Amino acid sequence: MTVESTIDDMARAARNAAHKLGRVSSRQKNAALRAIAGGLKTQADFIQSENQKDLMRAEEMGLSSAMIDRLTVTTATIDAMIAGIEEIVHLDDPVGTLSATWIRPNGLRVARMRIPLGVVGIIYESRPNVTIDAAALCLKAGNAVILRGGSEAFYSNQALASIIRSGLENSGLPDKAAQVVPVREREAVFALLNQEAYIDLIIPRGGEGLIRSVVEHSKIPVLKHYKGVCHIYVDEDADLDMAQNICLNAKVQRPGVCNAMETLLVHRSVAEEFLPVMAERFAEAGVELRGCEATCRIVPDAHKAQESDWLAEYLDLILSVKVVDDMDEALAHIAVYSSNHSEAIVTRDYARAQRFVREADSSVVLVNASTRFNDGGQLGLGAEIGISTSKLHAFGPMGVEELTTSKFVVFGSGQIRE
Amino acid sequence: MTVESTIDDMARAARNAAHKLGRVSSRQKNAALRAIAGGLKTQADFIQSENQKDLMRAEEMGLSSAMIDRLTVTTATIDAMIAGIEEIVHLDDPVGTLSATWIRPNGLRVARMRIPLGVVGIIYESRPNVTIDAAALCLKAGNAVILRGGSEAFYSNQALASIIRSGLENSGLPDKAAQVVPVREREAVFALLNQEAYIDLIIPRGGEGLIRSVVEHSKIPVLKHYKGVCHIYVDEDADLDMAQNICLNAKVQRPGVCNAMETLLVHRSVAEEFLPVMAERFAEAGVELRGCEATCRIVPDAHKAQESDWLAEYLDLILSVKVVDDMDEALAHIAVYSSNHSEAIVTRDYARAQRFVREADSSVVLVNASTRFNDGGQLGLGAEIGISTSKLHAFGPMGVEELTTSKFVVFGSGQIRE
Repeated sequence: MTVESTIDDMARAARNAAHKLGRVSSRQKNAALRAIAGGLKTQADFIQSENQKDLMRAEEMGLSSAMIDRLTVTTATIDAMIAGIEEIVHLDDPVGTLSATWIRPNGLRVARMRIPLGVVGIIYESRPNVTIDAAALCLKAGNAVILRGGSEAFYSNQALASIIRSGLENSGLPDKAAQVVPVREREAVFALLNQEAYIDLIIPRGGEGLIRSVVEHSKIPVLKHYKGVCHIYVDEDADLDMAQNICLNAKVQRPGVCNAMETLLVHRSVAEEFLPVMAERFAEAGVELRGCEATCRIVPDAHKAQESDWLAEYLDLILSVKVVDDMDEALAHIAVYSSNHSEAIVTRDYARAQRFVREADSSVVLVNASTRFNDGGQLGLGAEIGISTSKLHAFGPMGVEELTTSKFVVFGSGQIRE
Repeated sequence: MTVESTIDDMARAARNAAHKLGRVSSRQKNAALRAIAGGLKTQADFIQSENQKDLMRAEEMGLSSAMIDRLTVTTATIDAMIAGIEEIVHLDDPVGTLSATWIRPNGLRVARMRIPLGVVGIIYESRPNVTIDAAALCLKAGNAVILRGGSEAFYSNQALASIIRSGLENSGLPDKAAQVVPVREREAVFALLNQEAYIDLIIPRGGEGLIRSVVEHSKIPVLKHYKGVCHIYVDEDADLDMAQNICLNAKVQRPGVCNAMETLLVHRSVAEEFLPVMAERFAEAGVELRGCEATCRIVPDAHKAQESDWLAEYLDLILSVKVVDDMDEALAHIAVYSSNHSEAIVTRDYARAQRFVREADSSVVLVNASTRFNDGGQLGLGAEIGISTSKLHAFGPMGVEELTTSKFVVFGSGQIRE
């Protein structure tokens, strides 16, 4: 069987499964999710022994220790997957709910009903836990899902696939509702991206290279973010202690993620007071600063920033810093360099807080809080399947509701159009 | 200047205008809409004389009388455009509203704020009123818009463009917020569909050929429907008088539109009673029936339906009719042949009504009402920019809210991530 025909069969089967899955009760979906969680528990040894195969191959191939770390499935990883499923079980099921309802002058009762999107394709790298997290969230929303993990996690993902399959079968759901691509070759990704007749949405998760390649080759709509060049603007009216804590948190609490701060903008009138103390705290945390001219004057240890620094997503202990004349300049800088991911302002001024929230054109805009809160769990969506920085369908973290859409339902009593 | 560079300039200018327009108050947007309506009133003679140029050319080119009819701008057409704008002025402005708000355990206040999509491109045929209707709705939602009408309406659309431009200028809005492509060549459409850096969404309106061509060439997301193969299922428990009225209305009240019924499904146990009377009423209205074998036995005048009839959007006084054994068969037929547009059931049975509403996978599903109600105005959205039959972002009629999206705004008091 060719890669194309394997993928084609999977996509058709997923479409059939989606047709059934959209009508299944929450109770049945939750039973399947619990069955999968149960399988993870009883099959933990099997998962870890399959994961060993991936790890041995990774060492042979000389993968970096960071990659091997992401690839490793420990007992704690398995426990986290189980806890993640448990969390998804407890989410409200959006499918079938009426999200709005109104009555027309002719007596027609109109409502919007939440329904699944259909079939979702997830393309991701390294971390095998995505297989479980993404499958569980898609199933909860009533979608069939096709998962394509990185080839470096091949055995681990196949092991997880067998547990998902048993869970679905044992609870009477179609076993093709969640499938993992059983093909290592990269060809499988392109074949998947061609299945626009059967797959409704593609969500890629991984580095910018992976995501750009998916967008370029996909005939199916893609929800994604390329990168997070997140800004914090410290306003002239900021509480400077609060600003220090927020900036430190946003840069160093976990520098390798998309919602970490990459550029700090400081109002000129507080720069002399704020930057030296802030620079000291950053230095203690091992952060390298790359500043504009004014910054370098105030903080002699800072390197001179290049144009490329304002565009950079360092994902590292590096920060670009710019002194701005006012909020207009801060917003103009953000408008040019932002990746529409997350922007924050620190201020005590009511009007500027409101204006920043209105004008910063990013998926999450925060006042007096760390950019690190751009996360489905942190914002209260329960669990997230990814973050979108384009505006159609979803903008920001995508939870179970963003994996659904709505149709109109109309209850009449014989109405006809005049 | 080449067509490409003209379109490129328009798209950049639209993006700049969108940036400003997203921040403008409802009052200012409404003032601009009223200024445009005023211009339509005072410039009615100019519009009609420009329209004459299009009409003369149309006759020279031998366009059909139906096309010439659609192209003609009468005083009534202009009044309808003015009334349409007035209606849009009175719609609530979604931009900046918080559509949900909640508080996290750490005290963060999270909300979703409606924001414009950005720049919308509309590609349409013949009717010049779309130029005004679409521009007004996009402006209300805070979007810049680029309009590309049919070449047959070139002079009419340019006249309307000049009125829109004056209205924007006189009310202090960016005059590039609504632009009409000043190029007759078809090349302009392809150039527009390449502007993915500046245009966020394309909405095509017209025949299936136009829409397929747009989808094929667009690098920008497209919201559209290809066709409406709308079904009505007359259940065994239907009020047969009501069923007759609904079916007649859905087929003949305006047969040339996408929400007209194209296929009638009748439960076997009521077919003998229902079909002969229904066929008589259809015959009086000049409707040709194409039936399955059972239908042809009961209604001897009906023609034998071919496989292609179940797929056909006649847009004419023709109807395909099928007798089904039960609702399972009706839903299975709809699942195969539906275009996900509109489906209706006529029944007195509670459980089947609920099941039909849940399982028919179309953008509008109706109980005891005509399919002709799949329309933004009829469903209470105020005005519509089109109908979407794909699920991402919008499914069904798209009103002012579907021309927006939402971002997350977070109000904190110094929160950092643990």
